[in-house]
Amino acid sequence: MTQPDTTPRRVREAGFPQNGPAPELIDSGFALENADAGFLHHGLNLADLAHVLDLHRRGIVPDEACRKLLALLLEVTEIAAEDFPYDPVHGEPYNSREHFFVSRIGDVAGWLHAGRPRREAARVALRLHLRRQLIGLVEETVVFARDVVDAAETHASTLLPDQTYLQKAQPSTFGHYLLSFVYSAVRDADRLLDELDWVDASPGGAGCVNGTRLLSDRGPIAAALGFPRVIPHTRDAMWQVDGLIHILATAASLLSNFSKLAEDLEIFSSSEFDFVDLDDAYTRSSVLMPQKRNPYALAIVRGASGVVIGRLTGFLAVIKSPSARSDNLIFAYGEVPRALDLSMRITRLISGVIRTLRVNPDRMREELDRGYTQATDLAEYLVQRLGVDYRTAYVVVGNTVREASRAGVPGSRITGEMINTAALEHTGRTWGLADADLSAVLDPEQIVGSRRAEGGAAPAAFADMTRGLRAELRDLATEAAARSAEFDRAEEALLARARETSRRAR
Amino acid sequence: MTQPDTTPRRVREAGFPQNGPAPELIDSGFALENADAGFLHHGLNLADLAHVLDLHRRGIVPDEACRKLLALLLEVTEIAAEDFPYDPVHGEPYNSREHFFVSRIGDVAGWLHAGRPRREAARVALRLHLRRQLIGLVEETVVFARDVVDAAETHASTLLPDQTYLQKAQPSTFGHYLLSFVYSAVRDADRLLDELDWVDASPGGAGCVNGTRLLSDRGPIAAALGFPRVIPHTRDAMWQVDGLIHILATAASLLSNFSKLAEDLEIFSSSEFDFVDLDDAYTRSSVLMPQKRNPYALAIVRGASGVVIGRLTGFLAVIKSPSARSDNLIFAYGEVPRALDLSMRITRLISGVIRTLRVNPDRMREELDRGYTQATDLAEYLVQRLGVDYRTAYVVVGNTVREASRAGVPGSRITGEMINTAALEHTGRTWGLADADLSAVLDPEQIVGSRRAEGGAAPAAFADMTRGLRAELRDLATEAAARSAEFDRAEEALLARARETSRRAR
Amino acid sequence: MTQPDTTPRRVREAGFPQNGPAPELIDSGFALENADAGFLHHGLNLADLAHVLDLHRRGIVPDEACRKLLALLLEVTEIAAEDFPYDPVHGEPYNSREHFFVSRIGDVAGWLHAGRPRREAARVALRLHLRRQLIGLVEETVVFARDVVDAAETHASTLLPDQTYLQKAQPSTFGHYLLSFVYSAVRDADRLLDELDWVDASPGGAGCVNGTRLLSDRGPIAAALGFPRVIPHTRDAMWQVDGLIHILATAASLLSNFSKLAEDLEIFSSSEFDFVDLDDAYTRSSVLMPQKRNPYALAIVRGASGVVIGRLTGFLAVIKSPSARSDNLIFAYGEVPRALDLSMRITRLISGVIRTLRVNPDRMREELDRGYTQATDLAEYLVQRLGVDYRTAYVVVGNTVREASRAGVPGSRITGEMINTAALEHTGRTWGLADADLSAVLDPEQIVGSRRAEGGAAPAAFADMTRGLRAELRDLATEAAARSAEFDRAEEALLARARETSRRAR
Amino acid sequence: MTQPDTTPRRVREAGFPQNGPAPELIDSGFALENADAGFLHHGLNLADLAHVLDLHRRGIVPDEACRKLLALLLEVTEIAAEDFPYDPVHGEPYNSREHFFVSRIGDVAGWLHAGRPRREAARVALRLHLRRQLIGLVEETVVFARDVVDAAETHASTLLPDQTYLQKAQPSTFGHYLLSFVYSAVRDADRLLDELDWVDASPGGAGCVNGTRLLSDRGPIAAALGFPRVIPHTRDAMWQVDGLIHILATAASLLSNFSKLAEDLEIFSSSEFDFVDLDDAYTRSSVLMPQKRNPYALAIVRGASGVVIGRLTGFLAVIKSPSARSDNLIFAYGEVPRALDLSMRITRLISGVIRTLRVNPDRMREELDRGYTQATDLAEYLVQRLGVDYRTAYVVVGNTVREASRAGVPGSRITGEMINTAALEHTGRTWGLADADLSAVLDPEQIVGSRRAEGGAAPAAFADMTRGLRAELRDLATEAAARSAEFDRAEEALLARARETSRRAR
Repeated sequence: MTQPDTTPRRVREAGFPQNGPAPELIDSGFALENADAGFLHHGLNLADLAHVLDLHRRGIVPDEACRKLLALLLEVTEIAAEDFPYDPVHGEPYNSREHFFVSRIGDVAGWLHAGRPRREAARVALRLHLRRQLIGLVEETVVFARDVVDAAETHASTLLPDQTYLQKAQPSTFGHYLLSFVYSAVRDADRLLDELDWVDASPGGAGCVNGTRLLSDRGPIAAALGFPRVIPHTRDAMWQVDGLIHILATAASLLSNFSKLAEDLEIFSSSEFDFVDLDDAYTRSSVLMPQKRNPYALAIVRGASGVVIGRLTGFLAVIKSPSARSDNLIFAYGEVPRALDLSMRITRLISGVIRTLRVNPDRMREELDRGYTQATDLAEYLVQRLGVDYRTAYVVVGNTVREASRAGVPGSRITGEMINTAALEHTGRTWGLADADLSAVLDPEQIVGSRRAEGGAAPAAFADMTRGLRAELRDLATEAAARSAEFDRAEEALLARARETSRRAR
Repeated sequence: MTQPDTTPRRVREAGFPQNGPAPELIDSGFALENADAGFLHHGLNLADLAHVLDLHRRGIVPDEACRKLLALLLEVTEIAAEDFPYDPVHGEPYNSREHFFVSRIGDVAGWLHAGRPRREAARVALRLHLRRQLIGLVEETVVFARDVVDAAETHASTLLPDQTYLQKAQPSTFGHYLLSFVYSAVRDADRLLDELDWVDASPGGAGCVNGTRLLSDRGPIAAALGFPRVIPHTRDAMWQVDGLIHILATAASLLSNFSKLAEDLEIFSSSEFDFVDLDDAYTRSSVLMPQKRNPYALAIVRGASGVVIGRLTGFLAVIKSPSARSDNLIFAYGEVPRALDLSMRITRLISGVIRTLRVNPDRMREELDRGYTQATDLAEYLVQRLGVDYRTAYVVVGNTVREASRAGVPGSRITGEMINTAALEHTGRTWGLADADLSAVLDPEQIVGSRRAEGGAAPAAFADMTRGLRAELRDLATEAAARSAEFDRAEEALLARARETSRRAR
Repeated sequence: MTQPDTTPRRVREAGFPQNGPAPELIDSGFALENADAGFLHHGLNLADLAHVLDLHRRGIVPDEACRKLLALLLEVTEIAAEDFPYDPVHGEPYNSREHFFVSRIGDVAGWLHAGRPRREAARVALRLHLRRQLIGLVEETVVFARDVVDAAETHASTLLPDQTYLQKAQPSTFGHYLLSFVYSAVRDADRLLDELDWVDASPGGAGCVNGTRLLSDRGPIAAALGFPRVIPHTRDAMWQVDGLIHILATAASLLSNFSKLAEDLEIFSSSEFDFVDLDDAYTRSSVLMPQKRNPYALAIVRGASGVVIGRLTGFLAVIKSPSARSDNLIFAYGEVPRALDLSMRITRLISGVIRTLRVNPDRMREELDRGYTQATDLAEYLVQRLGVDYRTAYVVVGNTVREASRAGVPGSRITGEMINTAALEHTGRTWGLADADLSAVLDPEQIVGSRRAEGGAAPAAFADMTRGLRAELRDLATEAAARSAEFDRAEEALLARARETSRRAR
Repeated sequence: MTQPDTTPRRVREAGFPQNGPAPELIDSGFALENADAGFLHHGLNLADLAHVLDLHRRGIVPDEACRKLLALLLEVTEIAAEDFPYDPVHGEPYNSREHFFVSRIGDVAGWLHAGRPRREAARVALRLHLRRQLIGLVEETVVFARDVVDAAETHASTLLPDQTYLQKAQPSTFGHYLLSFVYSAVRDADRLLDELDWVDASPGGAGCVNGTRLLSDRGPIAAALGFPRVIPHTRDAMWQVDGLIHILATAASLLSNFSKLAEDLEIFSSSEFDFVDLDDAYTRSSVLMPQKRNPYALAIVRGASGVVIGRLTGFLAVIKSPSARSDNLIFAYGEVPRALDLSMRITRLISGVIRTLRVNPDRMREELDRGYTQATDLAEYLVQRLGVDYRTAYVVVGNTVREASRAGVPGSRITGEMINTAALEHTGRTWGLADADLSAVLDPEQIVGSRRAEGGAAPAAFADMTRGLRAELRDLATEAAARSAEFDRAEEALLARARETSRRAR
């Protein structure tokens, strides 16, 4: 056993790189990061302002330097991202900013980097962007939900043969059908607000690894940026990605709900079904076929849902790495905002589709009348009236409807005699229904009216649901608006303080 | 314009199929579903019991039939899934049950199907299974978190050169490093409990589409199964999948955290790093190479993380369909329980790895001493002492450490003179540090001690975190235990009521 | 600068583990690997036989040991995987085999491991399994393709309104529609054969890293296992995964084609479309609703397609690791064979669906007659007859069909007069078509007959395609059978040689 | 039974939409498609030229209109995509072109649409773009492969302790290690060329569904566009996506190979390993930490690999739809070119990393000497010398190296006496090796020299591989160049013919 050798290794030199980036690096990593600069620009401005103010508060940056930095940063807040000289030749966006600052105020710009890695600035900026996007997506989801509730109420008594496997199942209403898409959307909106709590927390002051010697209180910078809390563990603060997974998963969930609705509507708007028709504004003509109005919006909704699944998967693949790896977040800077932006556009699109949808109750009724969706109720009626077990009633009714369909007799005109015949064949005895009046049990409207239990299609049960949903949507909208107002307030306060300090510091 | 033609179509007959399944269907769909019977068996038993009791309560099933059914179902609750005659030739598991019931009590078995599709029974069963699994995974996550907190406390002052890009960054402690994995795990445990609220809700009485004429109150069946609430909308109750997405996403998130830890440990346990060593019980020998002890457990953790990403993606692809499609849930019956089961095994595995991990503080210190992780603190010190901007200090220090590394001088022995030289070259003037005592600012231990802000590695900040985490873990464990006890209580009450009714009904 | 310190590190001991595995490891890694033993069992037997024979050929294993090993291995080839004592408590399957061998022939079993890591045995076994599966999947795909070609020929003149966006587009035939699914399947079968060349290559003799001192020729072991070639680079031979990615991608591609067909058929077999009806043997009854025959097989096909997408993604996530990591293949041992097995079952299922499908030409014709799928041909006819540009013709025809649909006039009864009216309104002049006989241009049958260019629906063009496809399918089947026969021959020769050597060596 | 009712349905009107798109549609579908216009612009120009020429050849478009159209299209070929007025308010890019054409030549522009849906133009354009990209990616892959072969040759005798599980396994060379990454890349380049055959085929003349009455020969348009063959089935021609799946899968496979290399290099370039060091041009400085040179390029490679996995998955999710759905390709227009573009950038990046990589043979040797990678060879030597079975030799050697590591004796200094001791303990007898000269068997260089079988690290085996690879790379480069030249030739010929016709037609 020997003493450890702690001599620094021979080949490898410590110290920052001495030469500039290779063209391949500019064209890949730096180009990728700069393509995402637009998502971070506003947040980087705020992060830089807050950081300078905090350095000043702590007495680290001198007054004059502080003043110059703030003045310059305030100027930059007026420049749109697309007008700022972000350029991959300088490196990633933070480097472009640094380059710009130096070009304007020389060495004074160097104060900006005290006690803060670039990573922290970008993490802050991403969170400032995402918290706005999450609120935006919640708000769009509320709009969607309200549009669907409205449409559902309009069609609360529009009879529909609801389906499983696209086979007519039981009588329901188009309103009841539509309403089923609201619940999943509301739950995902709730989840977005849960993840907003994850996003809306300050990584500020986390340093590169475990904070910095320059800072003993991470609260002020959090407050300056309007974060209601500090992320405790500094390493976690820098590297956590779990919330991003869940944000993407929620977007994927939300869009998969829309995709189902879109795919249903595509089928329903075939001329064979002809249950619904899209407003022209959501269709696209064929350039070749003069007769066509293509439900293009539905294809976009469905395709976008697939795209977002891929964005989630891709992000999960990206983060399958050791801990504390830069790629985990570098690729998130663009992928997550883009996925959310797409999700918002799609939410607006499907809302528009629903808001303007033409519905064809006659065709729904026609198909309802053509099928045998009363069969279950008929079997249940027989169970209750005759005390036979359900399986026996099921077989007898099944055989009855088979014969009816062969004979061209619709479900509403099935007679007790027909059941008797089937019962005789199956059970060896007639069921004495020759004179039974089956009209009530075979009437789709009365069947729907019998669905009075919670969540059913009967009028009162339906009204209970829409009432409950409207209340939930009100709460969601209120919460979203309140959070949004807080963000505004915090940003304005930060800018005001920067302006004030930039004057005072003089 | 003409009157609609509602004559049933000519070719297609209504009514259940008249012939048995094709061998290809038995070998695919039915075989797949039966392979998952084990996950649903217990829940199907409970669902059937609750359904029969509810039919009896409502006066639908006669006393004698009720008695026979309950007696048979109670008998089946004693049969393990692997001993029950589930067989694809009968169809999916529900059909095998039906077949068994008929073989035992004939037509009386037919009462079971009144007012409830097979789908409802399976949905209930899945939820009963998942709610147990979610609690199980929360409990295992708490164990993991406690094991890591324990290990972190043990190594709260074990100095480590923390890294980004696997390049030494700043001095930290191995305890601080370890603790960063706890936060993400705790957040995912919280999310699992959120999704438990989604799972732990009753779809009972939802019927196939919008309830059933036989039922006007869905509360009793929910209560019988120990569900604290009813899922309102019947169609949503049958078809909702959003919670399953989020459960899988949370499992993927949880395992991705473990994968990062595993991948780090694999690197740390290379002989080149030699920071840690796995206990034999988590390694595997090579059959060929006598010198090897392979960290097999880490490979399993990492690989399983990839597998679960695929399970989430696959499920999202499965549900990309129109609404109300059976495949959405048929494939969930196996995929989700299997993913959770794998997640639990992996959580236990990584816990064991951590609990028994051998740590090598000497090597960590050796590498810390070999590097220049003090550079940032040195630059910050210069900013504070000299009032130079950070960028300037950064360049001077960077050049200093480069020269030091060329000369074989370790970071802790950098002198003011060396800085003076670099400053002179870069700024044209010396910085007057010839006599400066840099020992404190260059000492890793004192650097770590300076990380006193929230979440830092300084002893008090560290202790704050472990205290907070232990409280959170206590709450999680309490909540999990309470929920688990409720499930036990509800199941026992259901069985007791079934036994009682089966006697009374006689 | 100092001399490197090559003293072995102090804490870490070299040498295989001294203690047994932890229960968590048995329940995770070892349980996972043993669950896959069935896929490798046969191949491991062959790999072991070939290895022993090769060791013997090279004079490494003594005669007597060779005889005992071969006798035992030959005995094991008679034991089905499910009857072999694979047990996670011994480790992964190779360890169970080792344990069994030692229990039977003591130290002599130890000869088996000379010059070969466990990894090599498993890699060989996986390839032996996969080459059979690939052939199996190609053969099933050929069956599918033939079934579809048969059905397409039956319906070569069954008129269908083909659709885009599920909106009627142009007249076609159901046979032409069906045939479109064959091409993609054939291409994927070709790709499977390409990847078979990747699979069917020998990693034998690659050792752990770069071969072994015991072996100077890797040809004989490849020949013994029936591999037509050796994978050159030893490290690549052990760790390559690209072929597995492409096998899974091809399975995903194949099933996505089937999923599209299944989803189409689900829509077509709705009673609203009523274009087709599944044979009872591919449907499933509802337990609740007596009137239903659910196209269950289609849901299984669609869902399985989603599952396989997840298996591909999961595998890609698993292999996102550094190079030469065991998890890359450990998880492949089960995931890839299972995905291929599922793919084969699904291919058989969709073949059966097609083979027995009932088609309803009357309904297809009814819907064709109800629509305006002649519109494009009408516009093209006007372009040719009148020399107007297409856009103008398109607008006039579009306006004509709009008016026709309002007036309830079907496409086949559009008159020159109606076009004149529309032309007058759009262009300010009539087009002089009052007496035009449009019957030919509006007749779907004649329209289809005009599709004489390659790949069109006209009889001769259609027949060209089926002729070409049948030839391709014949070639595929021949190739698959030839490869399969080679595998049989090689395996039989290996067993014969083992039997012979086991006698001779005595 | 009644006669079918073929009266067109009442609510739904046939005919193209009458109103413009909704803002939500412009902001989603149309904005998405326009964002991809740059990928299709050039190909759309060529497709339009070829289509007009073909219409003219067939006598459909009059001379004058042909001339005007060609002149305008030739003008557009001179306009870069970013300068062309693509604008979502007009619809997707094809509509913007139509709008522009009409603005320039009025109704004459309407001739363009005769006999061709927009879909066909876009499909052609995508293929023209992809065939260039595939060639580009093959060429970049060849560059990568050559760079690695070069580097491998440089380090053909640089000893390296090769690893599994990141644990030292056996002696090898850094050249042999590097070379293993070439094979997978070459195979993927081969697959790209296979898929090029899929891409490089003409969908021209497929019409919307089954061709058009205006066209009886699809060969000329294929020839005009330089496609060597026609895709036979018209519906398949329009909708096939299998090749796109495989292109994305191949990109994912290629990048996963690079990611493994990048991840290895990240570990190897840690100061703990210090095996390699990236050139400055591929690193990035920390803004905070003066001592750091971060291997940023490696993080980009790894992250991009994850992103491309997501692109593949997303595409598979997008195409999980019924057949003939527009979203399948609409989303491909951008996703596939972007994924290939990213793949090319990453291929160039990793090539640059390798080309400039600094290698530290001393550290590799140091670690080789510190480990016990000779253990397998020692055990095999004992098997050969003493005739003991491998398992016994393995245990004795394992125990020997354990003792050696405890005593601080490196592998190269293990003595026969040490083995005797271990043998005595394990087998009860000494192995008489007291005087054995083990230096040859323990010398890494001689061990490597013994790897003479195919694919091994011995000089001759290594040289065989590089020779073979260089030949393969030459063939790949030749093939890529030839295909590329054909594309150039075809495009030039088309433009020449268009110019000529535009003059002649006058």
